[in-house]
Amino acid sequence: MHRTRIRVIEDALDANNTIARANREDFDQAAVKVVNLMSAPGAGKTTLLERALPDLGGVRAGVLEGDVQGSYDADRIVSLHVPVTQINTDPGFGGECHLDANMVRSAIPALPLQEIDLLLIENVGNLVCPAEFRVGEDARVMVSAITEGEDKPLKYPLMFRTCELVLVNKIDLLEHLDFDLDLFLHNLDAVHPGVPRLLVSARTGEGVQEWSRWLTRLVMPVEAPV
Amino acid sequence: MHRTRIRVIEDALDANNTIARANREDFDQAAVKVVNLMSAPGAGKTTLLERALPDLGGVRAGVLEGDVQGSYDADRIVSLHVPVTQINTDPGFGGECHLDANMVRSAIPALPLQEIDLLLIENVGNLVCPAEFRVGEDARVMVSAITEGEDKPLKYPLMFRTCELVLVNKIDLLEHLDFDLDLFLHNLDAVHPGVPRLLVSARTGEGVQEWSRWLTRLVMPVEAPV
Repeated sequence: MHRTRIRVIEDALDANNTIARANREDFDQAAVKVVNLMSAPGAGKTTLLERALPDLGGVRAGVLEGDVQGSYDADRIVSLHVPVTQINTDPGFGGECHLDANMVRSAIPALPLQEIDLLLIENVGNLVCPAEFRVGEDARVMVSAITEGEDKPLKYPLMFRTCELVLVNKIDLLEHLDFDLDLFLHNLDAVHPGVPRLLVSARTGEGVQEWSRWLTRLVMPVEAPV
Repeated sequence: MHRTRIRVIEDALDANNTIARANREDFDQAAVKVVNLMSAPGAGKTTLLERALPDLGGVRAGVLEGDVQGSYDADRIVSLHVPVTQINTDPGFGGECHLDANMVRSAIPALPLQEIDLLLIENVGNLVCPAEFRVGEDARVMVSAITEGEDKPLKYPLMFRTCELVLVNKIDLLEHLDFDLDLFLHNLDAVHPGVPRLLVSARTGEGVQEWSRWLTRLVMPVEAPV
């Protein structure tokens, strides 16, 4: 029975990858770079977007918000005068705990791809399933808040292993926590050796300029300042 | 296609509930009360267990740990000389992001049900899917850390709506965060009016005696001190 279940999952992931490639082609044709932003609930994805969006230089960005229900994050982003599209995984997609390629595909007709250079996809807050489903992104960025503890790379390795950048957020709280930053970075390197990481605080603004620059460079690798 | 997907999910939940009832019968027969402990990753489930377990009076407790992989939490609990059983959802169960009734059922033969009065099941860290799958528990307890923000009840309503107790954890950090406790409690009551809640800090010990008492009363409703 377990083998059958795994087979079903593998078939679902194969189908997902086929649709993700179709998304990728649509994004490439429109010359839009795509970031899949992932984290546990409450790690600070939306606040880090709010921080970065006004600071992207000439890069025109759009946001695709993924939530089980509601549009609380999209309502925050829209006040920045950035085009925002909402996907709710409930009820149309059965209340799924992640975005998959088909959900993103269903949103493509609503995305202003001709008017943007960069699409930031904010995934559902979850450290497990979002990592399993490619959606056609160029890069995966994950946010790990130091309030979540040092053990998260070890307990959710796929998420930490399949991303191109780790934002270590809430770094302003370091002095108020029993959090061993060296141990966290050691665990991170054990799972994904040398993965680029930025120590940031969405609250104080520490490190957010580097985060904006990372996004800008993704779109304009040459023109951006070093 | 969406309708088909929802039908598949409903059938899966029906099957889950049937197995959950079988688990419930086994637990009842052994006179074991069962708590399903749920939260986002890093909210403090394990530390709150470590705090409560030595303070349960005459109640004999056991722990069932659910993780995608590894046994980091079980290794911590075992040092308290409490019987611990580990379920890994990967690979046997396809890397699932939650425990379901069948996974718990598969662990029952390994549980020392005749030697315990209370089984504490620590679910996979996730605010979405664990709420959908009953496992045969008497009560659901969820942990919401104030570092996750005030909006979590609104964004993950099923989790907050289907629990019997909310542990509002990391309350020691209140003065260091831009967290509006009244707004969080307002959002909680909007989703689950009047649900019992305890303000706790697994770090400082604030409120953990009440948490231990709540567990004791679940097992011994009359004998426990008021």
